[in-house]
Amino acid sequence: MAEQTTRTDVNTLGEFGLIEHLTGNFEVKNSSSLKGVGDDAAVIDNGGFLTLVSTDLLVEGIHFDLMYSPLKHLGYKAVVVNLSDIYAMNGRPKQVTVSIAISNRFSVEALDELYAGIRAACEHYQVDLVGGDTSSSNKGLLISVTAIGQGEPGKVVYRNTARVGDLICITGDVGAAYLGLQILEREKQLFLSNAAIQPDLEGQTYLIGRQLKPEARKDMIEMFAQQQLIPTAMIDISDGVSSDLTHICRQSGVGAFLEESGVPIHPDAQQMAIKFGLDPITTALSGGEDYELLFTIDPNDVDKVKYLPDIYIAGEITPAADGIQLHTKGGNIHPITAQGWKHF
Amino acid sequence: MAEQTTRTDVNTLGEFGLIEHLTGNFEVKNSSSLKGVGDDAAVIDNGGFLTLVSTDLLVEGIHFDLMYSPLKHLGYKAVVVNLSDIYAMNGRPKQVTVSIAISNRFSVEALDELYAGIRAACEHYQVDLVGGDTSSSNKGLLISVTAIGQGEPGKVVYRNTARVGDLICITGDVGAAYLGLQILEREKQLFLSNAAIQPDLEGQTYLIGRQLKPEARKDMIEMFAQQQLIPTAMIDISDGVSSDLTHICRQSGVGAFLEESGVPIHPDAQQMAIKFGLDPITTALSGGEDYELLFTIDPNDVDKVKYLPDIYIAGEITPAADGIQLHTKGGNIHPITAQGWKHF
Repeated sequence: MAEQTTRTDVNTLGEFGLIEHLTGNFEVKNSSSLKGVGDDAAVIDNGGFLTLVSTDLLVEGIHFDLMYSPLKHLGYKAVVVNLSDIYAMNGRPKQVTVSIAISNRFSVEALDELYAGIRAACEHYQVDLVGGDTSSSNKGLLISVTAIGQGEPGKVVYRNTARVGDLICITGDVGAAYLGLQILEREKQLFLSNAAIQPDLEGQTYLIGRQLKPEARKDMIEMFAQQQLIPTAMIDISDGVSSDLTHICRQSGVGAFLEESGVPIHPDAQQMAIKFGLDPITTALSGGEDYELLFTIDPNDVDKVKYLPDIYIAGEITPAADGIQLHTKGGNIHPITAQGWKHF
Repeated sequence: MAEQTTRTDVNTLGEFGLIEHLTGNFEVKNSSSLKGVGDDAAVIDNGGFLTLVSTDLLVEGIHFDLMYSPLKHLGYKAVVVNLSDIYAMNGRPKQVTVSIAISNRFSVEALDELYAGIRAACEHYQVDLVGGDTSSSNKGLLISVTAIGQGEPGKVVYRNTARVGDLICITGDVGAAYLGLQILEREKQLFLSNAAIQPDLEGQTYLIGRQLKPEARKDMIEMFAQQQLIPTAMIDISDGVSSDLTHICRQSGVGAFLEESGVPIHPDAQQMAIKFGLDPITTALSGGEDYELLFTIDPNDVDKVKYLPDIYIAGEITPAADGIQLHTKGGNIHPITAQGWKHF
């Protein structure tokens, strides 16, 4: 390695800061590159449909723990999290490439399990596996998935187009995947301290399922098409509502407020948060990996979503100067800060 | 991890066998997925141009050694090897996504070097960086690049379309990158045995350059367009001529013979092979990572390539029953077996 006179730790930048730092000075050279770094997916004009491209790395020990992630679920999730990025552009995923790096502790049978999950996701979402690469690794398993989708010109939804007065909507419920992870981590620690202790996962199917086998909101994109609704901005909730709403606000140059009562929380998540001594709303806003959609709509479109199942109006876009705030049920106002997943 | 009753070591399948095993039973569901696993790139129909997608993993300790690979060169090479796959489809790369997983030993300055190389490749080949992901890793550096390109309907060239009687062409020269790697490995071992020994790389610029900073044959694709030549089949030489020609033959259901005198070998490679006690033609056929193009043409098109610089007619496609053979300068016939890079 070349000698360096200065050494800046990557932690000083954080994940988003690092991406901005590394890719900020790349200029776009092709007119077909409509959108590059900075949204859920890149947007490419091919003269017909728009091509959407999104890519994610999943690293053992960082993003997943094979002590409690069955390989089949992991394969499923690796695909789903990428498809979610395509849906978050109001697009339809069509293809995926899957590359894996594996240490020699993985057998063919183990990889078959992984690919059974990948296949199940491809079946469920009707996407095609069209490529990939396999390599050995010196340590652990790494999965790199790229999803390719189609978008219609004029209907692709970005992060940077929310406007003051737009309503903020959240699909499904949030915070459950994070609590599922906490349960799995707790049981792992108990098991490590005493292998005779059997995991106590009784009655936690919902939360654990949200962590181990998330689904992407294909149904929402289909519903938008039926309702002829085009959100004004959209992102998938991978890092947590706080972090993902902050992305929309920062990129759109706006502020926002969320009503605590409008943020959808599953009853199991509500109870489990309290059991863990956590504040349910904080967990709901900071917990990542729900893969729900957070989107904004023109207030004139409110009738198109008001009676739809599983969509919750959670707040409103405000001028940037107002910041990003939570209006609590008790009538207090708290600033919302981006937290998200810190993998570094 | 789920318990497995059987444990098959991945080495029993080899890299290509493993990919076939894992992806063989995926069915294509979208009519836009024109070509999936099994060529240099996937081909997607977007209603206008065809979209080509190729992806590669580069893993520290497997594909590169930071003791002699400067990070800037590594970034450059990581992009180039993917662009090469798009050119090998007779396409034009337009975008790349780059994901990295890094251990905490990498500083921001080190990553800046890596991205300076990525940027240089993007500049040189006029492609746009449009996305990616960053993650920490438990060990070392991993780079996952996906290249996206455009192909014209009717002009995309596959591996499985070589026909008996077609001429086999090779661009540039082959075997040099492998010899460059041998020199670097030799100097590394000497350095490890005695840190006072200075590396003896004098006069080896060509071979080392071929290993550390390969180029993709963009010029050839442009030349094909000028000459209105569409090869009948094409592959880039990443695993070595033997292995890559075998891919074309197996997928096209044909055999081939190569004339030893027709295989282009650089004089430096010729000399260095002998210095290492290796047979130059064996090195030229087995050595990988030259990123030249191996393609077949209809014999009626021979005048289109005969006078072009840097294209060598090296043999002919034969019936499958004839196998894949080398006709040596001495008049002998040897079977060619796929060797390629074994990373497992």
